[in-house]
Amino acid sequence: MPNFQRVVPDGDNRERDVCGDCGFIAYENPKIVAGAVASFEDKILLCKRAIEPRSGYWTIPAGYIENHESPRNGAIREAKEEAVANIQVDQLLGMFTVKHLSQVQMIYRATLPDGKFAVGEETLEAELFAWDEIPWSDLAFPSVEWALERWKEVENQAAFTAFETTYTKQLDELS
Amino acid sequence: MPNFQRVVPDGDNRERDVCGDCGFIAYENPKIVAGAVASFEDKILLCKRAIEPRSGYWTIPAGYIENHESPRNGAIREAKEEAVANIQVDQLLGMFTVKHLSQVQMIYRATLPDGKFAVGEETLEAELFAWDEIPWSDLAFPSVEWALERWKEVENQAAFTAFETTYTKQLDELS
Repeated sequence: MPNFQRVVPDGDNRERDVCGDCGFIAYENPKIVAGAVASFEDKILLCKRAIEPRSGYWTIPAGYIENHESPRNGAIREAKEEAVANIQVDQLLGMFTVKHLSQVQMIYRATLPDGKFAVGEETLEAELFAWDEIPWSDLAFPSVEWALERWKEVENQAAFTAFETTYTKQLDELS
Repeated sequence: MPNFQRVVPDGDNRERDVCGDCGFIAYENPKIVAGAVASFEDKILLCKRAIEPRSGYWTIPAGYIENHESPRNGAIREAKEEAVANIQVDQLLGMFTVKHLSQVQMIYRATLPDGKFAVGEETLEAELFAWDEIPWSDLAFPSVEWALERWKEVENQAAFTAFETTYTKQLDELS
């Protein structure tokens, strides 16, 4: 295991985790999650998570983007991996910063042109939900509910300004 | 220095740099840059860079966001640091993925309500440029030119859909 100590590296102005053994500086940068609210005939594609955190709860296809990947392509890849779906990305629906996790989620509006999907990696079930059938109390993350509501808000708009919010964990969620 | 080797960690499906001495896994995630095209009375705030890369060339205020920081707040902080400017952020102007650098730039449209600015950290000069005075051939990065042009395109629009592009280094730029 790395032997991290909090040190201000030369030329920097903040403390970083620096390994006392090998000198590696672990810059902690916010990570980008990309995902999509993908619809087919007014129904929305959700996946039941097979992995922690929030295993057994429903999410939109989403995940960390890889190096050399755009958020848009990350969203397309995640839909492929988690729901075996070939989505067509429309535009950025919103940007959701999860402050305590240093995560910036880029969520796109997308469609499922062929209506096809299946159970992919890290997924227990995949399903298309009509708006009134969405399992609101079994959604995996606050950003999923936020994204679905924003999607509904602009459902009939061909183009719109992307939404943006910052989420800070509530006191009663702290554990 | 870390003694990195390319290894697929347990439970992962891609090779990562793993330090052979301490076992640290250096996940290489794309990094988020936040910046702003900030205007005051039809003029745009640019800074001449005092640091490499591209020292001596002009840029919009921009930089890597810190942990627990939203892109929006990162853009505000960078304008404060680089140009001693208190910008007011309007909306996301565009998202510019620099593929070969694994960088996602979130560039906002902003204003400089009080018109005040100065030479900040990492800056040689700061200046407000009218559109016709912009030093196009002395801009620091392709994303700066792209952002300025997109800003001009929506100059008279109160709201708009954020632009999005992926930039891949051209062959003649490879060094």
